[in-house]
Amino acid sequence: MSVDTQKLDLPALKQALREFVAERDWHQFHTPKNLASALSVEAAELLEPFQWLQQGHATELGEQGLQAVRHELADVLNYLVMLADRLDIDLVDAAFDKIKLNAVKYPIEKSRGTLKKYDQL
Amino acid sequence: MSVDTQKLDLPALKQALREFVAERDWHQFHTPKNLASALSVEAAELLEPFQWLQQGHATELGEQGLQAVRHELADVLNYLVMLADRLDIDLVDAAFDKIKLNAVKYPIEKSRGTLKKYDQL
Amino acid sequence: MSVDTQKLDLPALKQALREFVAERDWHQFHTPKNLASALSVEAAELLEPFQWLQQGHATELGEQGLQAVRHELADVLNYLVMLADRLDIDLVDAAFDKIKLNAVKYPIEKSRGTLKKYDQL
Amino acid sequence: MSVDTQKLDLPALKQALREFVAERDWHQFHTPKNLASALSVEAAELLEPFQWLQQGHATELGEQGLQAVRHELADVLNYLVMLADRLDIDLVDAAFDKIKLNAVKYPIEKSRGTLKKYDQL
Repeated sequence: MSVDTQKLDLPALKQALREFVAERDWHQFHTPKNLASALSVEAAELLEPFQWLQQGHATELGEQGLQAVRHELADVLNYLVMLADRLDIDLVDAAFDKIKLNAVKYPIEKSRGTLKKYDQL
Repeated sequence: MSVDTQKLDLPALKQALREFVAERDWHQFHTPKNLASALSVEAAELLEPFQWLQQGHATELGEQGLQAVRHELADVLNYLVMLADRLDIDLVDAAFDKIKLNAVKYPIEKSRGTLKKYDQL
Repeated sequence: MSVDTQKLDLPALKQALREFVAERDWHQFHTPKNLASALSVEAAELLEPFQWLQQGHATELGEQGLQAVRHELADVLNYLVMLADRLDIDLVDAAFDKIKLNAVKYPIEKSRGTLKKYDQL
Repeated sequence: MSVDTQKLDLPALKQALREFVAERDWHQFHTPKNLASALSVEAAELLEPFQWLQQGHATELGEQGLQAVRHELADVLNYLVMLADRLDIDLVDAAFDKIKLNAVKYPIEKSRGTLKKYDQL
């Protein structure tokens, strides 16, 4: 099934990335440590267009900045999927588990409208 | 539908995060710039357990390290989903587009088994 | 000469860090790559207290936040000095060279009061 | 006194950066938050040449990579000096204070040759 007709979801993305890496024999470079480094570098590149903005809203980015941000979001997701795949971790499962943990750490009543960390609520 | 019974995919995650933020009235803090900063901080926390490893394989992490990494992967994904939502960007679409771009920048024959950047292939 | 009485400058800091590392036999872990990872992680920890601030001024940090920032600044400097030492690079020389390069890339008249990158001036 | 003949130390660097920023009227953009973001982005750019290296030694960088690293080290130092200046923090003082704290957290006998964190020694 080609990329153009398949359902675009996270499992399909994982599969497409596996093929991309296998075709180029890049698996050897993709230790979890290296993937975590690359992800961190991409996350910084995602921050870069925002770094001098006064308010940090999307409109301040401009069309070119917004396109750059879209590509960097993609890079972060791709490394995230490859790292999770390498560690045999289900990303979405982990994300829902984290939301549940955060719901306990940040009870609605105490955390509403405040930036305080959970240990200071 | 409760989190426990629903299908765990990216659209469901986006919805769960919207609810989490709305219930706490945190939308006001979540400018794209702030979300990009938080994502970058979480990406560094994900790198942290790997930073002194010699090889960087999963087995060097230990059970505790692997759990920490799972939580940090989740944090990165959650900020990624919130930031993309805020910018009205479809994450998986963007990721597939980036793979296509990279397939052109890194032709299979030229890039096989090498770390060279595309402008040096 | 003890730390308490010596002149506190960058060469003295480099020397103190060499001793600290040698006493603990940590040199083996301090590959340039690992030091660069650690520096990047500390830089993110330095960003963390600022991430949700509306304006990002020092007064928003509070006393506790400011102390945390002081410690993170120190961590970044310490890794920076160790990494430069490891690569035999003179940090301050490199910094002045970069200022001269930037003075050419960002001519005063064209860059005054604007955020534009040098290739868009 | 011109940059070419003056003593190149950290106080001189701070002064040179103040002038560079003042001449371009960039002080308005340099909130502590924005400087911390920029520093974090530069730290990631410093990590970037190392990210796929197997061992992470300087020799793997090549001449071009080493030059890039020298420039990124400079960028990190420059933002570090500007941020500390803005927060009225003495960088080298803070760095020596941190070494003293770390000497207590990591006693020589217990931490020799191990990667364990202080709370696991």
